[in-house]
Amino acid sequence: MEQDIIDLITKRVREELVREFLIPVEVSARHVHLSKEHICELFGYEYELAKKKDLSQPGQFQYNERVMLIGPKGVLGGVAVLGPPRYKTQVEITRTDAFALGIDPPVRDSGDLGKSGTLFIAYDKSIVKGEESVIIAKRHIHMTKKDSQRFNVHDKQVVSVKIYGQRPLIFEDVLVRVSDSYALRMHIDFDEANASGSTDGTVCTIYEASAED
Amino acid sequence: MEQDIIDLITKRVREELVREFLIPVEVSARHVHLSKEHICELFGYEYELAKKKDLSQPGQFQYNERVMLIGPKGVLGGVAVLGPPRYKTQVEITRTDAFALGIDPPVRDSGDLGKSGTLFIAYDKSIVKGEESVIIAKRHIHMTKKDSQRFNVHDKQVVSVKIYGQRPLIFEDVLVRVSDSYALRMHIDFDEANASGSTDGTVCTIYEASAED
Repeated sequence: MEQDIIDLITKRVREELVREFLIPVEVSARHVHLSKEHICELFGYEYELAKKKDLSQPGQFQYNERVMLIGPKGVLGGVAVLGPPRYKTQVEITRTDAFALGIDPPVRDSGDLGKSGTLFIAYDKSIVKGEESVIIAKRHIHMTKKDSQRFNVHDKQVVSVKIYGQRPLIFEDVLVRVSDSYALRMHIDFDEANASGSTDGTVCTIYEASAED
Repeated sequence: MEQDIIDLITKRVREELVREFLIPVEVSARHVHLSKEHICELFGYEYELAKKKDLSQPGQFQYNERVMLIGPKGVLGGVAVLGPPRYKTQVEITRTDAFALGIDPPVRDSGDLGKSGTLFIAYDKSIVKGEESVIIAKRHIHMTKKDSQRFNVHDKQVVSVKIYGQRPLIFEDVLVRVSDSYALRMHIDFDEANASGSTDGTVCTIYEASAED
């Protein structure tokens, strides 16, 4: 066969595989979701945060402004602020970041902030206390109802996920989150990305669903 | 049964399990193996490095002295120096460290330094160039010949390893290294430790041996 025909067929097979079986991996950098109160305290009551770009999950976006995280042992500057505002401020960092800051936050699902970590958030000359705001986000997959039927899993199911990165591994204990407001993505943090040799564009598959289902 | 008898039996079962099936996980912090030439250039020809402590692998130890790694985008201070000296200087860091330093070293087995990363190593006012010296160490298991018979694997075999950390996962592509000069340990770096919620004391099992064997 001609090389260009082989290339074309290979490309189409790949596209088909991606559409039918593979889940794109997205690496979440450290970031902050701010409450309206904290936005007012940090930026002033008149200030309007400027949207920088939309994120892969519909309705989610990043602001232009960046903040600094302050812990008892260190600071991390240039941290992304994501919108829209949340009811309660939530800071998502890696274990590596936690060591640098000198705090010991739990590995948690988004929104589960009881007894989570505490640090200070600064912008320019303003500073607020993020009391019980800090988690290491538990790895998870966002998908639509239609995706969930295709993968034969359901909302809140725990699955194992095989990552096809440079350092291949299988993440166990991965939460499936189903909503038609989601886009199909496996979300991991930078520690997990580095351990699996993943970058944006790496793909994964659901390897095993939990036995209790 | 009396509680103390239950506790005793539980303890003995655990000890048996550890002895028969489980492999201790050891997290390697960033470190440097220096060549004799680099030791002379950094510390002076008269200077004797002082041994701080023995490591788990027989014959391997850490010196008291610590060095600084200097890359194009950043520095990392207080880096451990391990002995005995090597024929060629080898620097082992994480992907996270590599970002901070501004270099892009490969994931490699120890000793495989062709086209590896380059950075500068400093101590006090001395500095040497570690040309093709930097790798991200590929995860691996050290074991004795007797261990290898028990686990039914051989030297250089590639296996999958299940980690019983706080964020459970299965590392694929793990190299088995067999020598009677080794002690049984699974070695991972801090990115891998953080991604799996492992600390020293975490255990793992060989989950699957490679198909080609």
